[in-house]
Amino acid sequence: MAFREGMGFSEEQVIEVLAEVFSSTDPRLILGIGDDAAIVHGGEQQILTTDVAVEGVHFRSDWSTGFEIGRRIAAANIADVLSMNGKCDYLLVAATLTGAETLEWIRELALGIQYEAVRAQAIVVGGDLVRSKTLSIAITAIGSTAHPITRSGAHSGDSIYLSSLTGWSAAGLSMLLNEKNFSEKAIARYKVPELDYHVDFSAASSISDVSDAVLVQGHQMAKASRVAFHLDLALIEQAEGFDELKTLAEKMGVDVLDWILQGGEDHALLATGTDLPGVAIGRVVEGSGITVLANNEEIKMAPVSWSHFQRD
Amino acid sequence: MAFREGMGFSEEQVIEVLAEVFSSTDPRLILGIGDDAAIVHGGEQQILTTDVAVEGVHFRSDWSTGFEIGRRIAAANIADVLSMNGKCDYLLVAATLTGAETLEWIRELALGIQYEAVRAQAIVVGGDLVRSKTLSIAITAIGSTAHPITRSGAHSGDSIYLSSLTGWSAAGLSMLLNEKNFSEKAIARYKVPELDYHVDFSAASSISDVSDAVLVQGHQMAKASRVAFHLDLALIEQAEGFDELKTLAEKMGVDVLDWILQGGEDHALLATGTDLPGVAIGRVVEGSGITVLANNEEIKMAPVSWSHFQRD
Repeated sequence: MAFREGMGFSEEQVIEVLAEVFSSTDPRLILGIGDDAAIVHGGEQQILTTDVAVEGVHFRSDWSTGFEIGRRIAAANIADVLSMNGKCDYLLVAATLTGAETLEWIRELALGIQYEAVRAQAIVVGGDLVRSKTLSIAITAIGSTAHPITRSGAHSGDSIYLSSLTGWSAAGLSMLLNEKNFSEKAIARYKVPELDYHVDFSAASSISDVSDAVLVQGHQMAKASRVAFHLDLALIEQAEGFDELKTLAEKMGVDVLDWILQGGEDHALLATGTDLPGVAIGRVVEGSGITVLANNEEIKMAPVSWSHFQRD
Repeated sequence: MAFREGMGFSEEQVIEVLAEVFSSTDPRLILGIGDDAAIVHGGEQQILTTDVAVEGVHFRSDWSTGFEIGRRIAAANIADVLSMNGKCDYLLVAATLTGAETLEWIRELALGIQYEAVRAQAIVVGGDLVRSKTLSIAITAIGSTAHPITRSGAHSGDSIYLSSLTGWSAAGLSMLLNEKNFSEKAIARYKVPELDYHVDFSAASSISDVSDAVLVQGHQMAKASRVAFHLDLALIEQAEGFDELKTLAEKMGVDVLDWILQGGEDHALLATGTDLPGVAIGRVVEGSGITVLANNEEIKMAPVSWSHFQRD
């Protein structure tokens, strides 16, 4: 950890708090926080990924607690590791703070990161804290896998699965933006995604993390695999939670498919294969692109600005 | 890579530029940029470190080109790996951009990171780009070592070495702040530190990267090793470059020791041991703290706000 002046508390204080929150006796950790770098046991095939989240763009401190923000950003990074059929081993956190944060808020943020790290069985091994005009948090996740699964392995004939029904995060965001509180669950999911650690996609032919939207990541997977994705409304309607989400969408006056297929940040996994767990939502066929079908007829979805989705 | 809207050019354009700059056929890389995460060959003992640099705090775009900023931030991270007696293998880059940057500037920044990565024989394997009100760049470095060397192994009787004389970066900063141009070399060193890749400290008893100042890191090493560091002015005066730096300090009306011992960001390595290469500057003795001696008399250095050094 490196720390700079003007935070209203000393470097020693913040290091003490962080060292306490992130303390670990895990045997994978050879040397933890306190030197120029951490030393860990590595793996033969490693997964490396980084994501940065910015106050006002990816999260709002007035909506979410430090704990929720910490969990959320950690989860977004860990999801990228899960989506390679990996296990997250280590996290590094580089944060820019504005000076308005209290030591207690930093502690809450660290506790949120640590909470999600423990769920993933990962260790927070280092970080950096500096002063900036904007609050941002960059997390790097380092994982391992015996058998990496990419986006490009989908075959015609595969079924398409979600690890759990998406749309809850978009529903929660919609409620927060419109100051409605129709569902604690939806708002909680927006604040902190629940990763599907228990869903075993190790037999999948391709996997991606749904960070933007099912239609965005599905399109990317179909393109990378040189196949077409056909999503089937009849299957989606059978998913656990669909009816509840549809009722909420009606209350909010929106199409539930917008939440499910075009909403982001659920961080569910989208996978292809045969006899996988989770929620079957369609099938892989020859061709290109992604299409949503109802009774074999294409449903025209609004042409989402897929690559311009503001939220992470 | 994930990318967000409002940058004035498309996600495809920036990914194309970055994929070109960071393209690699290195056999350590199993899967590069383009999926949810990269897949690489790991090592048994790995070094993990992250640092974030913020515009206006750690670098200034009006002083430095994108290329210089990229090199500099990469070098600061790589130095942390070298200081564990490691070799840097992989870099991940998470940047927050304001939208004022051109595609060409982003390309220059990437080229600077890539330039230093190639010097270190490291591969840039992934990253994230998002929109923010503040320009910041967080880099994570992943290295490997057969024999990690920490800060805490210094023994009484060891000599103290620098991989090269420090102070050039502080000299350059002083000139830029005072709008003097007495030394192109000093200004260049401030803009981009030159890492001492060729100096072999693998037989050292302790090493640290001088990111803040020799007196700061020396103090930390002495404390971690439960010994005292005695720096010897007579030795420092014999170092290559000392006379040149002293002449510049006189022109600028400052004490050259302020630059050498209290200036930051040279990213030289500070090590202890016997018969090491580099510049011998003192010896390790029993006791605590760090003292500067001239003819065995202590020189009182201004009580630097060591942990409050604004620059990274």
